[in-house]
Parts: sequence; C-alpha cells; structure tokens
Amino acid sequence: MKFDLLHTDEHSKARAGLITTDHGPIETPIFMPVGTVGSVKAVTHEQLTKEIKAEIILGNTYHLYLRPGTEILRQAGGLHQFSNWPKPILTDSGGYQVFSLAANRKIKEEGVLFQSHIDGSKHLFTPENVMDTQRAIGADIIMAFDECPPYPSEYAYAKQSMELTHRWLTRCVQHFANTSPLYGYEQALFPIVQGSTYKDLRVQSAQFIADMDCEGNAIGGLSVGEPEEMMYEMCALCCEHLPVDKPRYLMGVGTPWNILENIALGIDMFDCVMPTRNGRNGMLFTGKGVINIKNKKWATDFSAIDEDIDCYTSNSYSKAYLRHLFVAGEILAMQIASIHNLAFYLHLVKQARAHIIDGTYTQWKETMVPILKQRL
Amino acid sequence: MKFDLLHTDEHSKARAGLITTDHGPIETPIFMPVGTVGSVKAVTHEQLTKEIKAEIILGNTYHLYLRPGTEILRQAGGLHQFSNWPKPILTDSGGYQVFSLAANRKIKEEGVLFQSHIDGSKHLFTPENVMDTQRAIGADIIMAFDECPPYPSEYAYAKQSMELTHRWLTRCVQHFANTSPLYGYEQALFPIVQGSTYKDLRVQSAQFIADMDCEGNAIGGLSVGEPEEMMYEMCALCCEHLPVDKPRYLMGVGTPWNILENIALGIDMFDCVMPTRNGRNGMLFTGKGVINIKNKKWATDFSAIDEDIDCYTSNSYSKAYLRHLFVAGEILAMQIASIHNLAFYLHLVKQARAHIIDGTYTQWKETMVPILKQRL
Repeated sequence: MKFDLLHTDEHSKARAGLITTDHGPIETPIFMPVGTVGSVKAVTHEQLTKEIKAEIILGNTYHLYLRPGTEILRQAGGLHQFSNWPKPILTDSGGYQVFSLAANRKIKEEGVLFQSHIDGSKHLFTPENVMDTQRAIGADIIMAFDECPPYPSEYAYAKQSMELTHRWLTRCVQHFANTSPLYGYEQALFPIVQGSTYKDLRVQSAQFIADMDCEGNAIGGLSVGEPEEMMYEMCALCCEHLPVDKPRYLMGVGTPWNILENIALGIDMFDCVMPTRNGRNGMLFTGKGVINIKNKKWATDFSAIDEDIDCYTSNSYSKAYLRHLFVAGEILAMQIASIHNLAFYLHLVKQARAHIIDGTYTQWKETMVPILKQRL
Repeated sequence: MKFDLLHTDEHSKARAGLITTDHGPIETPIFMPVGTVGSVKAVTHEQLTKEIKAEIILGNTYHLYLRPGTEILRQAGGLHQFSNWPKPILTDSGGYQVFSLAANRKIKEEGVLFQSHIDGSKHLFTPENVMDTQRAIGADIIMAFDECPPYPSEYAYAKQSMELTHRWLTRCVQHFANTSPLYGYEQALFPIVQGSTYKDLRVQSAQFIADMDCEGNAIGGLSVGEPEEMMYEMCALCCEHLPVDKPRYLMGVGTPWNILENIALGIDMFDCVMPTRNGRNGMLFTGKGVINIKNKKWATDFSAIDEDIDCYTSNSYSKAYLRHLFVAGEILAMQIASIHNLAFYLHLVKQARAHIIDGTYTQWKETMVPILKQRL
C-alpha cells in the first residue's frame, strides 16, 4: 500500500491524497460504505460501482467470521472473490462488534471470550487469531484488535483499556509480520488510537500508535455517544500526534457535517452505517439538508430525489414515488434510499477533495455545514 | 394497440407475435413481471430493463387504488410517470385481490363492497369505477372487472359467477367506450374468460368474451389449486374459442414448465408472482432445474448462479455467495434471486419464441419440461 499526500489546505488541516492498493486506487478523503457480512445492505455491487462510485468498502470481521466463516472464505480465495467485489476492501478487527453485539463477553489478557449473537456458540478472539481471520478474509487494509470502551468511561477504566489495546497491538503487529497474505496481494495493518474522551490518554495512545510505524492509522472509540464538540476535540488532538505522511481513518463517523468537520482536522478515511441504516428508515441526506421521506409533505412532490449529484437512482425516481414505496413497505424503498445516501456521501467527499485542491475548503465547509444540518 | 401474428407452430398451437403499444413493442410469447404497488419487489427499473430485459410489467389495481391512490397517480400523470417506467404496463382489474386479500366482501349486482386489508376502510368496486381507476393509472392494457371463483367451486356457483362476470363485462366495455385515456396514449381493454373447471362453462364464457371483440382476451380463474392437467385442459378449450388474431393472456400462471405447456396451447402472455415470491424465499429457477439455494450443498459451490442466460447478476454472483446472503438474512439475497428468476423467465419465453419461429418448438418443449422440473 502506498499513500501520496497531494495537497494540504492552507486554512485547515484538510488533506487530499491518494492511497494505492493492489485492488486499485482510493482518492482521499474517502467514505467507505459498510458491507457488514460481505454485502452493503440492499445495494448490488454494480450499483456500488456505477451509481455510488464507491472506491473501497468495509467488511466486519466479527460477522464474516461467524458467517460464512473463514473456511469458506479461504476456499473461495478471499472476500473479493467470494463476493464479486474487485476493488479495495477494509476489514475492522471485530473488537467493536464483540463489545456491541456479542453476549457474555469476558475480557482477558489473552483476548475476548464471547458468545455468538446468532446461536450462542462460544468463541475466543485474540490479537493473533484476529490477524489470521483477516488474512483469510483477505482485505487490503486490516485493523488491529482493540477494546472500544463505552462513553462515558471512568478515567481508570479508559486508561486500563487503552493499555490493554496497546499490548494487543504489539501482538497484532508481531503476528502480522510473522504471517503472509494468502491470495497473492498485499495487506496493510492499521492500529487504532483509543483513550476515550481523556486528552492525556488520547495523546499517549496516538504517540504509541505512531511509534508502531504502520502504513496507516485509525482513531476509534469516538462517535459513541459523546457530544460532537468533544469528538472534534479528541480527533484534532489525535491528528496532531499521528504522522502526516500516512492516511488517518476515523472509525464509525458519521453525519455529512461530521465528515466535513473531521476532514478539516486532518482525517482521510471514514465509514459509517448511517447512510444505509438511516436510509432504510426513510432518512435521506442531500446537499440541501435532511429529508424524512415518509413525511406527508412529499406525497405529491414529483421532483427527483436529488438532481445535484451524478447518480441515476437519485436523478430518476421522484420523492413522491419513494415516499409511496416506504408507505407501502416495498423493499425497493430501502434500495433507492440506500443508493441515494451512499451516492451523496461519495459525492460529498469528492467535492471536499476538489475544494481542498483548489484552496477553498474551509470557506466551502463553513457554508455547507449549516445547510447539511437543515431539516427539509 | 396492434397485434401481428408472425408465426404459428406446425406441431402445436404455439404462436410468435408482436404487440405494439404507444409505450413500445412486446414480442410474444411474453412473461410480465408483477409490479404490485408500482414496484416489482426488490428490483429497480434499471435492472428490469438491462438485466431482466422485461418488455412489459404488471400493476395491481387493488393495491394502487389503495396506495398511493388514484388522486396522486392522476397528478403524477399516470403510473409510467409516477414510477419512472417508460415501457408498457398492464393492470389487472382488482377483482382477484378483492377476493383474495380484502375483508368482509359483499358481492352484489352493482359491484363488490369490501374492507381494505391495510386499514379496514370500506370501498366499493364496480365495473365502471374500476375502468375509471385504470384510466387514472394509465396502463397500456387494462382488464375487465371479474369475479374469480375459488377451486373447487360447485357448478351452480361457477355458472352464476360466470354470468355475473359477463354482465359486468358488458358494463366495463360500455364505460370504457364512453371514457377517454387521460394522458395522450391509447389503452386497450381485455375481457376475462371464467367458468371454473367446467368445460361447458368455459366454452360458453370464451364464446361470450370472443363476441365482445376486444383487442385481446384473457383467461382467468386457473392455477388456483386445480391439478395441472385440468388447467391445461381448460386452457386448451378456451384457446379453441378465442380469436386467433388477438393476443391471449393466461392470468397468474405459473412455473416455467406451465408456461411452456400453455404456450403450446396458444397462449401469448403470462404473469406470475412465482419468480419474485419464490425467489425471495431462496428458490431459483434455471435451465437445469430448480435450486433451493438455502440448502447446505451450495455452501462451497463457487460457480455462477447461472451462466446460460444473458444477465449480469446471474453470471457474476456465485451460488455459495447467494446462499451465504440468504443464511445471513441480507436483503441483497432477495434482490439477486428476484433478478435471476425474472431474467430466467424472460430468457425462457425468448427461447420459446425462437423455437416457434424456427419450427422446433414442440420437440424443444418436450425435452425442456422434465429438465425444468428437476430438483437440483
């Protein structure tokens, strides 16, 4: 994996870059649609490519480990082959899902014991076997195994958790170095900054992570319930201590305005279930604000969902039709809303990149943020 | 609407034809995907055009009348405009749904009183207002209001029901003649042969319907639980008495082998929810037989769903991946299976047409039917 930093904004920390993987290039800043169990919910891979223009998608190690399981993925030749997705993939480490979905988890030095949310079967995730699982999945970018503490966390717990994450990171890096990719292309390992909402812990963690000298770095444990201003503060602090010449990935964030604000702080990569999950519930993000398409006011609005972005689905179906599909409980409603929201997110980061390159990012961002937040 | 009969098979009653509507041509025999409330379930209109190669889709008057309602459809300029579907549409009359879905229905000479299955609200369908509703929907082909008796029905009931359907037909034809299309293109009215499984009633009904001299004719009340052989017998009888120079539409049929058998009897048009409904439950139709994709035997079958038809989805996703999506409960499973099954149905009728034209239909049909029925 290669990262070229092409341009840095003069008035903020926003950056335009280019990540090169064996499955193709990724122009940063980038948003990565979440493909939980090897499928971005309600979206085909053709739509991801042609309509949404996704450059990289995310897979969840926890979900893929449980279903279809590493044995099938290994036989298929990895997730790219299995799911018919030729572009880059990033997998998380499973840590977040173990803490948010699994039952009866026990955190030990060795790793985490948990029960599957599907059938109650018992499993152990360790830094080493999570590296092995991500080798079997075969993502281009894989994540270190971490503990993601909830918000709020006591200082003592946050510190102890961060230290465990650091010890696990050392084991991840070592096991990653001792193993090889399985399918003939390279994989890059990103470590994750933790430290909850404590400034000194965040600085300490960012420095520890930076010292590991991995090919990119991530910030975890944010957007878990803390106020937006606190997220921005923590993110800014982490970015200050993470190397400039490597991509920075803010995990699980966020709204369109969160993305623009965090780009301004120096973030290059984002993922979030919001465009798909909220889309399935009828919330649409547009360049003019947020739409609740189930609202009666759209019943006779025959204008296109969004004419301002380059996406067939957004341009062709009307608001009235989409509202009708939601009211009637049609699956197509979820498909259209998911495609539109993801296309909008990709459009937004592409616009951000253009503004960073032409030196107008900060001004544009200040104008856009209040518009994006509007309820239409 | 224009119907050109291009070729008739020498060894059967199979026909190849061409229907021309103001929204484009339809090559017959044709299968029409069912777009219940203005959406073929889990399929986008782009996929219908490019992957499935649908030439005409069906809308259900009962569903569209309840949601979004005729007022919104009128404001939108009809269902084509509302749903962004530029090709031909056929709407049923609502009769079938009133009898299968609605509650507390009361059949009177005037029409049918019923309560909506959605909110219990009371409605009256009459031959006249069903014509008005289908004028507002704006389908290219619309259906007469009929009563569809269940199987089995007593002779006396079947006869009385058929006679009511005939009286309603006279009123439909009259009201249709007294009203005009609303959106600047022509609509054709098809009457429906009823008569349950009684030969004399079917003959009587087919003759009555033929005498109305409409632009096409339909056969209803079959594939409602009777043995397949009885369906074929009734269908053959009706076809004998329906004019040769007009398209014949067998409503709600059926499996791939049902379609091939009925084509041999002289049917030109089909619709059925089976490819989409069964698809959503993991049943796939292919040229080699029927697949239950949830079966464990497909877990490591990395071959394409179907390489023998011209459809990106069928050619690109593997059986193992589709099985995984079903097991994991992903929406994409229903999308892929629906697209594949519809593409296969359209492929099948296209193949049938080619064999009719080159004179090999009967031989091909005899070979195909047992293969299509196989469980893989």
